[in-house]
Amino acid sequence: MKSFLRRGHVIIESVEPQVDCGRYRAKAIAGDDVDVGADIYRDGPSVLAAAVRFRGPGDKKWSEYRMTHVDNDRWVGSFTPDRIGDWEFAVEAWTDRFATWRRDLVKRVEVGQDVDAELLEGAQILEDHLKALPAAERKKVRETIVSMRLPAQESTSGFEDPRIKAALDKGTAELMSKHHSRSGSTVTKPALQLTVDRELARFGAWYEFFPRSTGRTGEHGTFDTAAEELARIAGMGFDIVYLPPIHPIGTTFRKGPNNTLDPGEDDVGVPWAIGGPDGGHTAIHPDLGTFDDFKRFTKETERHGLEVALDFAIQCSPDHPWVTEHPEWFEHRTDGSIRYAENPPKKYQDIYPINFDTEDREGLWTELKGILDFWIDAGVKIYRVDNPHTKALPFWEWAIGAIKAEHPDVIFLSEAFTRPKVMKGLAKLGFTQSYTYFTWRNTKDGLTEYMRELAGTDMAKYFRPNFFANTPDILHEYLQTGGRPAFKVRLVLAALLSPAYGIYSGYELGENTPVAPGSEEYLGSEKYQLVQRDYTAEGNLNRFITRINRMRKAYPVLHHLTNLTFHQVDKPNLMAFSKSLAGETSILVVVNLNPYHWEEGMLTLDLHALGLDSWATFKVHDLISDETYEWQGAQAYIRLDPFSEPAHVFRVLR
Amino acid sequence: MKSFLRRGHVIIESVEPQVDCGRYRAKAIAGDDVDVGADIYRDGPSVLAAAVRFRGPGDKKWSEYRMTHVDNDRWVGSFTPDRIGDWEFAVEAWTDRFATWRRDLVKRVEVGQDVDAELLEGAQILEDHLKALPAAERKKVRETIVSMRLPAQESTSGFEDPRIKAALDKGTAELMSKHHSRSGSTVTKPALQLTVDRELARFGAWYEFFPRSTGRTGEHGTFDTAAEELARIAGMGFDIVYLPPIHPIGTTFRKGPNNTLDPGEDDVGVPWAIGGPDGGHTAIHPDLGTFDDFKRFTKETERHGLEVALDFAIQCSPDHPWVTEHPEWFEHRTDGSIRYAENPPKKYQDIYPINFDTEDREGLWTELKGILDFWIDAGVKIYRVDNPHTKALPFWEWAIGAIKAEHPDVIFLSEAFTRPKVMKGLAKLGFTQSYTYFTWRNTKDGLTEYMRELAGTDMAKYFRPNFFANTPDILHEYLQTGGRPAFKVRLVLAALLSPAYGIYSGYELGENTPVAPGSEEYLGSEKYQLVQRDYTAEGNLNRFITRINRMRKAYPVLHHLTNLTFHQVDKPNLMAFSKSLAGETSILVVVNLNPYHWEEGMLTLDLHALGLDSWATFKVHDLISDETYEWQGAQAYIRLDPFSEPAHVFRVLR
Repeated sequence: MKSFLRRGHVIIESVEPQVDCGRYRAKAIAGDDVDVGADIYRDGPSVLAAAVRFRGPGDKKWSEYRMTHVDNDRWVGSFTPDRIGDWEFAVEAWTDRFATWRRDLVKRVEVGQDVDAELLEGAQILEDHLKALPAAERKKVRETIVSMRLPAQESTSGFEDPRIKAALDKGTAELMSKHHSRSGSTVTKPALQLTVDRELARFGAWYEFFPRSTGRTGEHGTFDTAAEELARIAGMGFDIVYLPPIHPIGTTFRKGPNNTLDPGEDDVGVPWAIGGPDGGHTAIHPDLGTFDDFKRFTKETERHGLEVALDFAIQCSPDHPWVTEHPEWFEHRTDGSIRYAENPPKKYQDIYPINFDTEDREGLWTELKGILDFWIDAGVKIYRVDNPHTKALPFWEWAIGAIKAEHPDVIFLSEAFTRPKVMKGLAKLGFTQSYTYFTWRNTKDGLTEYMRELAGTDMAKYFRPNFFANTPDILHEYLQTGGRPAFKVRLVLAALLSPAYGIYSGYELGENTPVAPGSEEYLGSEKYQLVQRDYTAEGNLNRFITRINRMRKAYPVLHHLTNLTFHQVDKPNLMAFSKSLAGETSILVVVNLNPYHWEEGMLTLDLHALGLDSWATFKVHDLISDETYEWQGAQAYIRLDPFSEPAHVFRVLR
Repeated sequence: MKSFLRRGHVIIESVEPQVDCGRYRAKAIAGDDVDVGADIYRDGPSVLAAAVRFRGPGDKKWSEYRMTHVDNDRWVGSFTPDRIGDWEFAVEAWTDRFATWRRDLVKRVEVGQDVDAELLEGAQILEDHLKALPAAERKKVRETIVSMRLPAQESTSGFEDPRIKAALDKGTAELMSKHHSRSGSTVTKPALQLTVDRELARFGAWYEFFPRSTGRTGEHGTFDTAAEELARIAGMGFDIVYLPPIHPIGTTFRKGPNNTLDPGEDDVGVPWAIGGPDGGHTAIHPDLGTFDDFKRFTKETERHGLEVALDFAIQCSPDHPWVTEHPEWFEHRTDGSIRYAENPPKKYQDIYPINFDTEDREGLWTELKGILDFWIDAGVKIYRVDNPHTKALPFWEWAIGAIKAEHPDVIFLSEAFTRPKVMKGLAKLGFTQSYTYFTWRNTKDGLTEYMRELAGTDMAKYFRPNFFANTPDILHEYLQTGGRPAFKVRLVLAALLSPAYGIYSGYELGENTPVAPGSEEYLGSEKYQLVQRDYTAEGNLNRFITRINRMRKAYPVLHHLTNLTFHQVDKPNLMAFSKSLAGETSILVVVNLNPYHWEEGMLTLDLHALGLDSWATFKVHDLISDETYEWQGAQAYIRLDPFSEPAHVFRVLR
């Protein structure tokens, strides 16, 4: 009973943003508004007030902003985290006695009731609050009190009564609203947690390439030759260069070109078969260079305005030092051998998975986090995590939490392609960004439905998609068969639907030959061999990619995910979407998904989403073709020929 | 780190039924299945197993049933609470090593892999589990182990290999599934709470009447004259008789007929102005009889298969004993007077609200609960709570929880007509049933939308609607103007849409005169005066009501809320809905909402919802007209004339 007796009248429910009842952190970006909503109500007709309370990393005191009532007992407010790290917020709501009294006074006066007694009560409420007011403001309120307590005058009545005028004084109302007693207020507990990241966690263009392929013809590349690519990559407008594992590669059961089992002496092996006599996850492949070479490479990336992302793959080749130093970290078969990786009936003898159920969990986890600490010390703040869905989930929650507590600027990209709830689970457990099903969403319906899930559901609170248009593992049939137009279409979609996107090198050359019909693997895959390219080869998409990346940077609406609207086009291969933000130029994209043939159709715009009135006359300027059209109203004729340009990217001019 | 190291791999999310993250109890009925759902996943491709654990009031041990995987990592299970009271449940999930191994073995054998090593590993898993098996079953598993460890035979291979046959033995698989180690399992915490009520909390027909109106002409009724009505009420098929307050009525500021302010000496006053020299909430109005008379009355209700519901109205007349005994429980104005009830600018001088913010909260709350204890001791288990939304919300959570902990058979009906979230909030805080907006939902769209919210959203987990077709406060315009057909329509809708419904006496006589145009108050309202009726008057709906109540009892599909489907009719005034349950006769209702004119239209049935195939030929038997029609397929022609019968209530014959 005691605990109930102490409770306030006000109930606060359904606070947003909230992930799984507060079990997980929602995500935000420093400098972005965090919109907070809550259902707030109490018994009776009292006027309520509410505030969102928040504090950032290291803050002892809470700050707060007032919330406002929208409709149907829903209140909203917002705050803007000014720095990265773990933030928390809560909602406080209380009864505003003075505002309630004031509202009722108006109702009484409106019907001509005698309010002498009410005025004395209102004056008493003010007097009760005098001490809570800033000293400088007390005089004003004291005067109000005195006026309210004047004897009634026959000559004035209703709203002309000077007592009532004083009681309804706006300044007094504002002061009281600001300083009103919160006795009996309700505060949501526990506070909700929020991971606040830097902008690159939301918005960035990734470029994946294998440093070992950057050597002169036939030679193994080094960090120095890789650094020579940076100007080209930065010039195309990318923000992040992601390198597959740079560690020593095992020789036992090494794979040959095209995943063959009998490699030659010169075959370079798979970078994900990590570890050999030269070391494991904290060592560098000797052919790439030294640790100093790597440091020089990262300096160069910085100089080009780029940032390095490394691969974090928790698995070992049979030659990894841990195999002898920590055999207890692997699973052993009944014959004593270490269990290699399998996805029955497939066998991967060149890879030993780590046994997260080892007796020495603490030792293992500490060592794994130590790898991250090592590379963070070396200045690497972005990690593309290989197959996190096959490693113990509690490990990720702990490791990412521990790393980000010390280094809130670190970004973890989850490379999981698995069942929807597991992908979501990894994001909830802490991954900053996530690979997606984007490569397999190639139809208008498929793309629209997927975007509605990513941008329009609870997922947007914690799951930040990164749309890779290709990866060394995924060359989709659409790209295999659709030629140059297909590569343009998928680039436009990846780069303009998702604030974070990426390509794997070779994309700009339209590389599209699969190892076998029906396979999504590349022929001569770079996973198993060096692939040296002439990036200036005819037909390259360098300029197209550059133009798209420039648009991304130039238009703030493209830096966000949830500001997306789909527009109707009456043809299944024509898809239209826009992004808008208050005060910013809207971008409207129309894509012909058919890479083989021109398509024409009628576009019906959601003008409201574009901030336009019905029947507005407005211009759209195509940032690809540089043409400008004048449109009126919601409908516009569209014709897109993949062999000139398969997409319009319009900026909408008012 | 330590807490993370201990965590299992398996994650359980989105457990249902759950109200506001487990903050409130979901509701169930003893004997009904409780369907439990959960998202369950882990890293890697291991086979999982899950169970729903549950225990009832007083149980120390948990019982459990296994859950099954449906799709997309969603698991379901159910349990059936066998008695009323507070239940709790949780979900446990774990990795089934043996099932994982067995699944992989099949994949390996299918492609002809050598599985000698795997067989030894599987045998080891079985051996590790031997101790966990019931002694009687160990022999069988030991034999399996021995067979699996036999040397390979050249003559057999694949699934013919006796070792593999033994390994894949179904009995062994079932035994292992049942007794598999749950080491590292995940259990949801804290357990979710469930209020399990008796069936009357879900399904019951209420009849409200004023005992004081049952006297001989001009005389004040008594419990004895009221008891004479019980045969009639029970005969119509009602389950509950609800009596407005039976306590002494104040005389100070007593209201006269039609809410006038100058009552005569004989005017009886408003029963909700509780308390006078004869006592307060635990006293009985002397004109109604003594406590013994009341006891005799409740015995009589029982004899008729009825149950009494009393009114619980936390407010006082100025003559209530508390006004002098506990002035601190009321709010005092600056002039020392007690604040009467107001809804500015309206004033209710005859009612003193209780001040829940009194310093003596504990004393007040204890006394209020004591009133309930008093009447519960007198055998009353059902309370219609007057305007609970104007009393402190924490009080309800405490009081209902405390009462139901001792008397889980008590039913609380919330008489709140206020904003949606407050109505929902009261249900979450513990009210068993709730008044609704039903009286104001008179169009097909309005009714459909409201039913979708009540029956098809999260609300169904905690909010049990009670559809009153009229109340002493609400005579809707539809009834005022629609005549007899309107009363039939609204009765059919109330009684067949909602498992709990009610009428206020006079409904059966079609009383429909408002006190003033545009008012929902009755002329000569029984709230202010005796209203003596001839229930056999011509045009009464007694037989119609009796027939509807009989249908309700006869067809189990009508005892539930969420088993509702709407069917299309191509006219705005024709509405069709059905209720179905596996193994039970479906009921299909078609109503003409236009009480003034016949309507015809084409009905398009959702045959699947009725358990029928497309193009099925089936008969429907109208329980109102007793006519039978043979229909084929989804479409049927409907014509309903309000002046014969405004509704069909079909049982669907296969």
